[in-house]
Amino acid sequence: MSRIVMKFGGTSVGSVDRINHVSSIVKSEFDLGNQVVVVLSAMAGETDKLINLTKDLSDNFLASEYDVVISSGEQVSAGALSGLLNSQGVKAQSRLGWQIPIVTSGDHKSSRIEAIHSKDLINLLESNVVVIIPGFQGVNSEGRITTLGRGGSDTSAVAIAAAIDADFCDIYTDVDGVYTSDPNKVPTAKRLDKISYEEMLEMASLGAKVLQTRSVETAMNNDVVLRVLSSFSDLGEDKKGTLVCSEDSIADKKIVTGVAASTNDAKLTLTGIKDKPGVAADILGELADNGINVDMIVQNISGDRKTTDLTFTVPKDEFTKAKTLMENLSSNLSYKDLIVDSNIAKISIVGVGMRSNAGVASQMFRILSQNNINIDVISTSEIKISVLINKELTEKALNTLHDHFELGKAS
Amino acid sequence: MSRIVMKFGGTSVGSVDRINHVSSIVKSEFDLGNQVVVVLSAMAGETDKLINLTKDLSDNFLASEYDVVISSGEQVSAGALSGLLNSQGVKAQSRLGWQIPIVTSGDHKSSRIEAIHSKDLINLLESNVVVIIPGFQGVNSEGRITTLGRGGSDTSAVAIAAAIDADFCDIYTDVDGVYTSDPNKVPTAKRLDKISYEEMLEMASLGAKVLQTRSVETAMNNDVVLRVLSSFSDLGEDKKGTLVCSEDSIADKKIVTGVAASTNDAKLTLTGIKDKPGVAADILGELADNGINVDMIVQNISGDRKTTDLTFTVPKDEFTKAKTLMENLSSNLSYKDLIVDSNIAKISIVGVGMRSNAGVASQMFRILSQNNINIDVISTSEIKISVLINKELTEKALNTLHDHFELGKAS
Repeated sequence: MSRIVMKFGGTSVGSVDRINHVSSIVKSEFDLGNQVVVVLSAMAGETDKLINLTKDLSDNFLASEYDVVISSGEQVSAGALSGLLNSQGVKAQSRLGWQIPIVTSGDHKSSRIEAIHSKDLINLLESNVVVIIPGFQGVNSEGRITTLGRGGSDTSAVAIAAAIDADFCDIYTDVDGVYTSDPNKVPTAKRLDKISYEEMLEMASLGAKVLQTRSVETAMNNDVVLRVLSSFSDLGEDKKGTLVCSEDSIADKKIVTGVAASTNDAKLTLTGIKDKPGVAADILGELADNGINVDMIVQNISGDRKTTDLTFTVPKDEFTKAKTLMENLSSNLSYKDLIVDSNIAKISIVGVGMRSNAGVASQMFRILSQNNINIDVISTSEIKISVLINKELTEKALNTLHDHFELGKAS
Repeated sequence: MSRIVMKFGGTSVGSVDRINHVSSIVKSEFDLGNQVVVVLSAMAGETDKLINLTKDLSDNFLASEYDVVISSGEQVSAGALSGLLNSQGVKAQSRLGWQIPIVTSGDHKSSRIEAIHSKDLINLLESNVVVIIPGFQGVNSEGRITTLGRGGSDTSAVAIAAAIDADFCDIYTDVDGVYTSDPNKVPTAKRLDKISYEEMLEMASLGAKVLQTRSVETAMNNDVVLRVLSSFSDLGEDKKGTLVCSEDSIADKKIVTGVAASTNDAKLTLTGIKDKPGVAADILGELADNGINVDMIVQNISGDRKTTDLTFTVPKDEFTKAKTLMENLSSNLSYKDLIVDSNIAKISIVGVGMRSNAGVASQMFRILSQNNINIDVISTSEIKISVLINKELTEKALNTLHDHFELGKAS
């Protein structure tokens, strides 16, 4: 007997047929003798419909009432699945955020879970009742409905798994696991059987969309074992999926686990800045003060040695704002030219094995240069190396690196 | 300064435009210095959509989860209007059934309101906050969401008005009041300025759809003054509407206030029943035991004086069930023939003045017979006289009676 939290995303409950399929998956886990909590997203499209309603009413819609409107989507899917399971002979009960309660911070639209009262949930599980919980929602200390921000259902599932000490938190989605690279761009991409939390975090932040960064963090901090599984496979099929767990649980540590591309950044270069102490800090400080997240940064001494060039990347949707800020810098932060470029891609290799293997970075740079792919900016972390390249070369770079590090081979 | 509960139905909040119009109506009441609570139905069509979802999932959908799914419709409109009002500079807050709480009986799909905690509501009103409450929903003693059954939003509004001791409970709908008869059938029908609870109850039970019977009962029992108003009139216009209040508040008591038709019944006649004591009671008991509501009943001695004929009406949707029951009566309740007829209409005149005016019934029968309209069955209450006639003659009977009792005249 295991205690399992099963989370299903919006496409998994997107129609009456899909809800029926989810019901069969839940029933089969329950019939194996497991204790089951199900966490659901809203039916695909419903959240967008509700968001559009608030937007159509006002472009300045109050956040606390936004949460009242939007949280109804998950309420519908939770009630729907619970009603269906009961009609199929499985005892189930829905529990909304305020009923459990899932207590969150006071802020709306992007609340954080602070506490989950697990007693009632565990009582229900011990009485063989399947508990159905809408994801993404909670209640704050004033008793008002809150939501966790987009993708918050994953976080709900992981936090609930931690609160009830579940053996597994199964994230059902429309793909059957985490891949070594994006299969749409890299035909030889392979599903990973296991990946560490740290690697998953880096992959998620690079746009591997199977899991939200926040939910992986929560899992890591609470030792919740995640399984990424497909809700679209047939019932009889073996559950393949990907296990996301601590590094210690992975015997065969690869140097490079995955290679990912992100095209969500834009690059700004200021040339001919007067080279005096603190100038880069002042310029970047201006961006931080305006809430713009700077990702990669590189500073070069220019030819005359009295000035310097500063290059950095920002999220594409902050690009115009960042450009305006740079154009209006105070006079003591003068520069010669502002060069902007949004035709870039960030290519990253990720792997916990890098910690104990020197020379991975140089291998990466050499193999790219041998293939005539110019590297623009480099940034590294303990388990990740990222480079900026021309966006047109994204697929070539991904496939070249995927081949070189033999990620397509059977493990 | 008045304390007002304003209730808007589904068509009144059926689109972004309509919600904007409701917001203007609420704002104009609030700007007059009134304390305002708003009770809302779900946006038109949403409840049916949600009901269909549960039906598509199972024809045996659990009632407690049905309530979780269906109540989300009103939650959306409450959050939507509250968010909009705030963006227009009116401080508003939504309060869902469980937040107030509106405590109901334990049964689902057709709960009854048992208590409304008014303290928080009154505090908000005294702080000049408009409170927006989804109608139709509550929470039972187990902390689970309940609904009041179709049309329950009117009942919510009246019960809330009673709980906070409101001066008025304004029911906004798509017509501008209660009419002397159905204007679609009687061109000279006139809007009533005032009508008593008792008359309104009779009119509502006869199919005048502006108010639900249960909400009128609740208003009558709690002395809540109702105003039926149109949410479709322009803002500048005079609020006409109809006041629904106690008989004592109506100075000019008319003998006949309204004339209504209902075509929701079917008629069954058993001929040649053995005329012995208790036989009618046994036959009607059989119907009652099977949950069938019998409306009009008449028993005649037949020609031979040893047998009798029994005629009664039942709701059309119970007709087949009633017929089957009659065909399978036990042998000691034998009869000669069963004659069934669903081509009938019940025509009623309603008025508190009948109490003190004899001869209204005979006037009604005479005027119908003078116009060649045959009367089949008669039933009377203190303030209502109903007759069964051929359905094809409905409009003729309505107009004839409407003219005779001078209901189209300016009062």
